[in-house]
Amino acid sequence: MIELPQISDVISAAERIAPYVKKTPVLTCSSLNEMVEAELFFKCENFQKVGAFKFRGATNAVFSLPEADAGKGVATHSSGNHAAALALAARERGIKAYVVMPDNSPKVKKAAVAGYGAEIIYCKPTLEARESTLEKVVEKTGATFIHPYHNFNVIAGAGTAGKELVEEVDELDFVIAPIGGGGLISGTSISVTELALKAKVIGAEPEGADDAFRSLKEERIIPSENPDTVCDGLLTSLSERTFNIIKQRVDRIITVSDEATIAAMRHIWERMKIIVEPSAAITFGILLEKKVDLSGKRIGIIFSGGNVDLEKLPWNPGK
Amino acid sequence: MIELPQISDVISAAERIAPYVKKTPVLTCSSLNEMVEAELFFKCENFQKVGAFKFRGATNAVFSLPEADAGKGVATHSSGNHAAALALAARERGIKAYVVMPDNSPKVKKAAVAGYGAEIIYCKPTLEARESTLEKVVEKTGATFIHPYHNFNVIAGAGTAGKELVEEVDELDFVIAPIGGGGLISGTSISVTELALKAKVIGAEPEGADDAFRSLKEERIIPSENPDTVCDGLLTSLSERTFNIIKQRVDRIITVSDEATIAAMRHIWERMKIIVEPSAAITFGILLEKKVDLSGKRIGIIFSGGNVDLEKLPWNPGK
Repeated sequence: MIELPQISDVISAAERIAPYVKKTPVLTCSSLNEMVEAELFFKCENFQKVGAFKFRGATNAVFSLPEADAGKGVATHSSGNHAAALALAARERGIKAYVVMPDNSPKVKKAAVAGYGAEIIYCKPTLEARESTLEKVVEKTGATFIHPYHNFNVIAGAGTAGKELVEEVDELDFVIAPIGGGGLISGTSISVTELALKAKVIGAEPEGADDAFRSLKEERIIPSENPDTVCDGLLTSLSERTFNIIKQRVDRIITVSDEATIAAMRHIWERMKIIVEPSAAITFGILLEKKVDLSGKRIGIIFSGGNVDLEKLPWNPGK
Repeated sequence: MIELPQISDVISAAERIAPYVKKTPVLTCSSLNEMVEAELFFKCENFQKVGAFKFRGATNAVFSLPEADAGKGVATHSSGNHAAALALAARERGIKAYVVMPDNSPKVKKAAVAGYGAEIIYCKPTLEARESTLEKVVEKTGATFIHPYHNFNVIAGAGTAGKELVEEVDELDFVIAPIGGGGLISGTSISVTELALKAKVIGAEPEGADDAFRSLKEERIIPSENPDTVCDGLLTSLSERTFNIIKQRVDRIITVSDEATIAAMRHIWERMKIIVEPSAAITFGILLEKKVDLSGKRIGIIFSGGNVDLEKLPWNPGK
């Protein structure tokens, strides 16, 4: 049986990463509350370092390494927020980070990762090329591979956002977090089900990438195939570890249309004056779409990140 | 001599409006600090109700009215943040608001003002038409005209943002606020020069609308003529009252190119993940442009508002 993080692991993570991460604010917005007739509490990980909750898990993983391993550095394959998060966490500890990226990655992502001092190793844009390149890097350098969401310490670190949320806001009925590979919802569900006994955890997943929804239904991991959604952070499949945690602790997964996610994102930008990415806005999309009646409830929402291409906003596609 | 608000008026305003306005947060951002080598404290009035500091002044003006006057309502001519602010403030007091707007105003602005329950009276898009239409409305209804920045109580109310800032952050060397008609910088300068004796007040004005800069230099009000700038909230001329306050209390005005303002706005969106309008971002533009050396200083900045058209962002003009 695969080892699953427990609340004690999240608590240790919180202590370990405290000197490095931001304690992000919980914001409220009366006009969004009115719009959906519920009381919402937004945990703003878009304000986290590197602009995403990913920095919590990466920092926990990096600072959990024994000295001898740490000295050889850390490695991952990712073109997204995890790569930037790992690069910065490694810099904070003063160790090397190796990031395998597809050679067609957007310039802005290459620049972000390089800006935090990581060494980038380019590969062809296929999963096979990524994995074999990563394997070679690990073999050559002795670096420790930090998986973006399957890693035990990454999940425990991700859970610290939900922990802060339920410690700050009492009497929540629900907590909603997005589901991609399942790291955030796993960590969140450990914190919420242990520290806020009354609250249920809901996962928000794009209709066009609903592999977690189908996995829960069929009780086996169904890989994400040809996902089609504006939520570019939610394309990946569950891992064995995240699947098992979700099965135990998440009340349900609700799928959301891209239309509702884009509308949600726009309302959040216009009313709250904060920048969230589609993969974060999808949580509020659940409330707009009303597949499930959550009116009158006190609902915590994890805004997972705020990294968007400002030249290509989803309400102005192609422009 | 025209009567000028004093710090006691700002203090009274703060008490009067406390039940209605948001106490906005003061945010910091280490990457913006690094970028300009100074320590910055951003007072986020973009998070204020109606998305701008204007709600403070409008609320103070509306709630300062004697009952008998208030019963007849308030009126203004504006197509911007002041109109929305006055409409909401009037609704909070349960009185009528009449807003004279040019018939070619953007739909979104009409909708905002109407959404707060104001009665809109359309006129031709000229200053003469606005003023004569307003005069007729006031004559007919007995409503009190609330000028967007010349009004005594509007200025005192605007000063409450700077008051909160200097009460929260010690030892500021400078406070920067934008200058349009001068209401915000007037109120800010009253609070800062009385409550933070060490701090100097700097006004940020667009190069393409530098009437206040020239007015201070020539010691007379030079009207804003054919202003050309991305800062659509900073097009207006000083009034006699704001000119006199600025002359007494503002250390200097620094003009900023639109290029620097747009770069500033983009950095703020990307690094802080918050939405500010160009007329607010211009303050950080001063630090990017470095016409004056402010490195190493502790600087308070008033982010005046966050109302932007998300379909027409200045780094993507015409798209």
